[in-house]
Amino acid sequence: MPKLDAEQSALLRQVGHEWGRVSAAPEAWRRALPVDPEVGSYPEPAQIVPARFGRFVRVPALREPPSQAAGTGEGGPGGGGPEEPGTEEAGTEGAAVTGGFGLRLRRAVLGAPLKSTAIARERMRKIVALPVLSADALSSVAYGPEALLAVLVLAGTAGLRYSVPVSLAIVFLMLAVGASYRQTIRAYPHGGGSYIVATDNLGRVPGLVAAAGLMTDYILTVAVSVSSGMAAVTSAIPRLADDVVLIGVLVIAVLLAGNLRGVRQAGALFAAPTYAFIIAILSLVGVALYHASGRDFHTVATPPLHATEGVGVLLVAKAFASGATAMTGIEAISNAVPAFQPVAWRNARTTLTWMIGLLVVLFAGTVAIVHFEGLVPESQETILSQLAHRSYGSGGMYVFTQVATALVLLLAANTAYNDFPRVLFLLARDDHAPRIFLRLGDRLAFSNGIIVLSVAAAVVYVAFDGRTASLIPLYAVGVFLAFTLSQSGMVVHWWRGRDRHWRKSLCFNATGALLSAVVFITAGVTKFTAGAWLAILTVALFLLVTTRIRSHYDKVREALRLHPQMIEIPSRTIAPLPGTEEPPPPPPPPGPWVPSVSTGAPGKERDAETEDTPEEIRHLSVVPLEGLHQASMRALAYAASLQQPVLAVHVSPSDEDAERFHDAWLLWGDHLPLRVVISPYRAIVAPLVSYIESLHHQRPDLTVTVILPEIVVRHWWHRILHSYLAGRLRRALRPLPKIVVTTVPFHV
Amino acid sequence: MPKLDAEQSALLRQVGHEWGRVSAAPEAWRRALPVDPEVGSYPEPAQIVPARFGRFVRVPALREPPSQAAGTGEGGPGGGGPEEPGTEEAGTEGAAVTGGFGLRLRRAVLGAPLKSTAIARERMRKIVALPVLSADALSSVAYGPEALLAVLVLAGTAGLRYSVPVSLAIVFLMLAVGASYRQTIRAYPHGGGSYIVATDNLGRVPGLVAAAGLMTDYILTVAVSVSSGMAAVTSAIPRLADDVVLIGVLVIAVLLAGNLRGVRQAGALFAAPTYAFIIAILSLVGVALYHASGRDFHTVATPPLHATEGVGVLLVAKAFASGATAMTGIEAISNAVPAFQPVAWRNARTTLTWMIGLLVVLFAGTVAIVHFEGLVPESQETILSQLAHRSYGSGGMYVFTQVATALVLLLAANTAYNDFPRVLFLLARDDHAPRIFLRLGDRLAFSNGIIVLSVAAAVVYVAFDGRTASLIPLYAVGVFLAFTLSQSGMVVHWWRGRDRHWRKSLCFNATGALLSAVVFITAGVTKFTAGAWLAILTVALFLLVTTRIRSHYDKVREALRLHPQMIEIPSRTIAPLPGTEEPPPPPPPPGPWVPSVSTGAPGKERDAETEDTPEEIRHLSVVPLEGLHQASMRALAYAASLQQPVLAVHVSPSDEDAERFHDAWLLWGDHLPLRVVISPYRAIVAPLVSYIESLHHQRPDLTVTVILPEIVVRHWWHRILHSYLAGRLRRALRPLPKIVVTTVPFHV
Repeated sequence: MPKLDAEQSALLRQVGHEWGRVSAAPEAWRRALPVDPEVGSYPEPAQIVPARFGRFVRVPALREPPSQAAGTGEGGPGGGGPEEPGTEEAGTEGAAVTGGFGLRLRRAVLGAPLKSTAIARERMRKIVALPVLSADALSSVAYGPEALLAVLVLAGTAGLRYSVPVSLAIVFLMLAVGASYRQTIRAYPHGGGSYIVATDNLGRVPGLVAAAGLMTDYILTVAVSVSSGMAAVTSAIPRLADDVVLIGVLVIAVLLAGNLRGVRQAGALFAAPTYAFIIAILSLVGVALYHASGRDFHTVATPPLHATEGVGVLLVAKAFASGATAMTGIEAISNAVPAFQPVAWRNARTTLTWMIGLLVVLFAGTVAIVHFEGLVPESQETILSQLAHRSYGSGGMYVFTQVATALVLLLAANTAYNDFPRVLFLLARDDHAPRIFLRLGDRLAFSNGIIVLSVAAAVVYVAFDGRTASLIPLYAVGVFLAFTLSQSGMVVHWWRGRDRHWRKSLCFNATGALLSAVVFITAGVTKFTAGAWLAILTVALFLLVTTRIRSHYDKVREALRLHPQMIEIPSRTIAPLPGTEEPPPPPPPPGPWVPSVSTGAPGKERDAETEDTPEEIRHLSVVPLEGLHQASMRALAYAASLQQPVLAVHVSPSDEDAERFHDAWLLWGDHLPLRVVISPYRAIVAPLVSYIESLHHQRPDLTVTVILPEIVVRHWWHRILHSYLAGRLRRALRPLPKIVVTTVPFHV
Repeated sequence: MPKLDAEQSALLRQVGHEWGRVSAAPEAWRRALPVDPEVGSYPEPAQIVPARFGRFVRVPALREPPSQAAGTGEGGPGGGGPEEPGTEEAGTEGAAVTGGFGLRLRRAVLGAPLKSTAIARERMRKIVALPVLSADALSSVAYGPEALLAVLVLAGTAGLRYSVPVSLAIVFLMLAVGASYRQTIRAYPHGGGSYIVATDNLGRVPGLVAAAGLMTDYILTVAVSVSSGMAAVTSAIPRLADDVVLIGVLVIAVLLAGNLRGVRQAGALFAAPTYAFIIAILSLVGVALYHASGRDFHTVATPPLHATEGVGVLLVAKAFASGATAMTGIEAISNAVPAFQPVAWRNARTTLTWMIGLLVVLFAGTVAIVHFEGLVPESQETILSQLAHRSYGSGGMYVFTQVATALVLLLAANTAYNDFPRVLFLLARDDHAPRIFLRLGDRLAFSNGIIVLSVAAAVVYVAFDGRTASLIPLYAVGVFLAFTLSQSGMVVHWWRGRDRHWRKSLCFNATGALLSAVVFITAGVTKFTAGAWLAILTVALFLLVTTRIRSHYDKVREALRLHPQMIEIPSRTIAPLPGTEEPPPPPPPPGPWVPSVSTGAPGKERDAETEDTPEEIRHLSVVPLEGLHQASMRALAYAASLQQPVLAVHVSPSDEDAERFHDAWLLWGDHLPLRVVISPYRAIVAPLVSYIESLHHQRPDLTVTVILPEIVVRHWWHRILHSYLAGRLRRALRPLPKIVVTTVPFHV
């Protein structure tokens, strides 16, 4: 519900006034309801605790249905907890008791039905938030250093010598960007993703560009994490190397299935891999440093290398841009501030500091020991695997290292599944994405988002043969584009606000923005042909689509605005918007209102669907009937009970059939006007639509309600045998103005 | 509209009586209509003449809309011919004037929109009917003799010697079956397809078996005709032999597209290939016989052959069964009797006699000259091509022969596209197929049928590598199964009727049935492993599916029957069904009626949707609103204008949003009861459905009408951005009892 502006408020008030003025119905019946609308209240978020592994919560019915409660005795109303079958469950199960086993099987595989489940939001303690939110960033250590070395090794041993200075530059970058994000958390305690910060401070297009960067980032997080995880696995089990593409796609499918099914993001189980990975890398670094100390920190000689390129600025810049992918995921905490326990922003900040510290240690440690051990990237085995082999042989510790690496990468990929729908939500909030994504807790919207993510990630993964090295150039561009815009936005933010400490914060953010921009430009330029062009193209395409969506929604909003077309509003009566807490102001005095257009003369202009008071609507109900059976009878009774003119229509393939129908109609008592349309071609939709259209043309001021009896069957395969007609008629009638379609169900 | 039995009629009358007795509404308003329902009358079939090539006719709107007529001046109402744009066209084009070029392009490719077109039926003169209806049978000469020889050649020269006697047997079979079908035409002047004849005389299951035989027949007609046509093409252009599968599938796709687009079946254009083929074969036979007469009818020696099998009964039987495929399509005329000009059955019979004559001449002639020329089937070149090469060399006459053969085969394949939907129609009429196929003139139903046919034919074609020889075993089984059952049915028919000449007719039919049965059994046994098993399996599967469909419809019909559950009907008041011509009889005197159950106490039993008089229905309208805009206003006005209790519902993601909505509501004037549901998870469908379910549980006797404002956009890709909610709610509410869903459109 968007906020109404002054003009809309005034119009709304006047429409309401008109309604009150001309409405013939007494206040009494308008207030009288056969039900108590206040059936219970929806459970508060705090009441619903997510289950152990699942993130979907059951949305219980608002109140225990009285007949159910009476039927099952006592104890019903008490068990409203989320892990109970829930009240609604009992209701539907009672109805569909015959589908017992099949239903339960389907539930087991696909989860509870969509309509009664929603996504839970979680609040995390720091000890859980750290591993869950850092998985993405820390796991980057599994491919960042390797990506760096893979570039330098092109220049042979001479190139590798640059690994330490380049790494130091990256560590500095990490610290600068980390410090920069600390400022963001303070400024945006409700979550400061790149999109929000860039939109807030730089404007719509930079915001969309940042969002595009983020979206490509998430897609590539999945692809790179899976490919890197597969590398960890194939390093240990080289036999699997040939099937890496297939297995990777299967892993993405499992991620998709798990998330469709509703795997939780947080929880002790999801904390374990990150801690295990931290322990694995720290102990690897420790053991390697211990060995190195035995050699007085002399580096082991690298194997002889064939240099294909000379050492140059370009090569070093490339290596820097590749190695900087070790920072991906660093923004996760600033996005997720509201997921922390209070005081959220303070906890988030502490966690961020911890994460940056760990990231620097793991990254620097890895680069250092690779340097000391004189290791060189190989295509068959990851650097981490080589290190582990050298330190531990092939025993339990080696396996632990590889398993922890693979798991933390899997967890990192899973992170994208949480972030992607959120960015879609933010985009939808600003009308840049389909509105369905606004319903963040809506399981279907969520499902659509993660399906898009999975398909995109799988396509990228397959297109690049599941090779991490090929994916890195794409990755860096999107990530650092988002970083740059986000931090530039923060610079503007501080400059505009100039509150306490603004100078210091601005400084940190400016440094971060500048460095990120350097990486972005470096990556974009040096790797343009290697894949960065694709990332840039995606960003451009995304920009195009989102602005088109926005402009469509703008157009629709304009069309939906209340407008004074039917009522001549003297401009002086448009009162300023009253304070929203006050009771509604008395309606403006009945001034020179022009009464609504008389409906006597049907005119083209009455096609417009502008009736906004009940008295303006003239009714005609049309009931298409295929026979006179139980469902038809009910539809006729429904139509007649509306106390508006009713016309029954039957489409007959032949005169004999028409006569037979007419006889039955007379037998029934001929209580309503009937028209039998002969359709010589046995078509039914076309003649009906034509006939209804003719009625509309005859009296364009009428609102024609088409009341369709619809036979509802239990199984979808039975549906093929039936309900095509209601659906087809609905679709055929949809483009026509002022045709309301009503389906009266009859359950078989 | 099925005929009502005595019980149903009595119940209908009593329901009507009850309606009249308790209905509070005065007769006056029930009769008063704001429109004249008799808007024009639907055009008679005779008025609509199909276009030159198209078989779809536009279904015009029932009457020229007055505003349109006024707008375009005079001349509008006169131009109601089918080739004119038509009145409805003008109406829609006026509405969607912005989509000009795109719309016209789409029309050009896909044809006019489905809702205003129907399939035309055609009446044919004999001179057109002969080629159109014989294409299938005569084109069989292109593969029948070859199939025969292909079996015999396995036994080498010794085998080939049997070609003449086996062919004579087949000619006898042709004459016998032809004579048999002449009887059928006389007995079934309204069309006597195998399904009808078998069902009428032998019962339901034999009818279904015959239908199954026909369906496989049609699928294989397409596959075999295409493969044989491709053989004619590759004989002339051997280069194409490698791509035969691909090209064949493309041909099927073209057939599908043409039929979706609505290619006519009859017409001079469609007569040409058959006459060309007849000329080609006759002149081929003539030239070859002339050559042979030059040799005193000595046969040319066949090339030396390697015999892999000895001559035995099995081989000859196999050859007979294969050669009998030259008869496929012989039943076409008896199916299509009503398509002839009057007196239809007499014209059909004459045409059949001509066709049989031509078929015998072409078949016997082909076999004879193959025999004289000492030709042997080859895998690269068809027998017909070999003959043509030998007679004409490679000149124009050769090309003419091959082109005529390919075209007549294409036409034969196209015949199946006319017959397949008709069998589906007949099956649907007896509730053995989805009811949508009942709407024979309905373009969508027609399209579905031919898509099924095309896909099945393409699958078979590809599975058998497009080789005619591999498809023949499957073909013979289905065709002769249908023949056997149809003619056995005729035997029973004559025996039952015993009218004039019954003995003679029975004799003819019995001979036909017996011979067909021999072929069927021979084909089924000798070719079981070569593919006949697949045909038999298909028949069994078909039988299973159709009987399941029937039993489902039976169940639904039972559920839909009017039943005296709410009204206690004393058995003596069930009056016998009055004559249908009489005016409705006076309602039975108000006897000991039990009034309908009081709605005071909500009870489980009120879930049943059994209200069949208006006074039994208690209303509550629920209007879900997402905001207060033009579309919402219209939905609210619509709801209130129904003069029944209305409850507006808004789902808010947060308390702030709820408050904002509530303020706007007060500003509007709070004319209706409002309930704001807070959905902490931003889900919208689940809370709404839950809430509506709760309302239903509170008062199960109420019929709850959910009135959804639906924003209708022009393009489908815009629809992604909008209408998901109405559709999803409709689907979610569908399983619930007594929930009526109404969509109030708002066109942007």
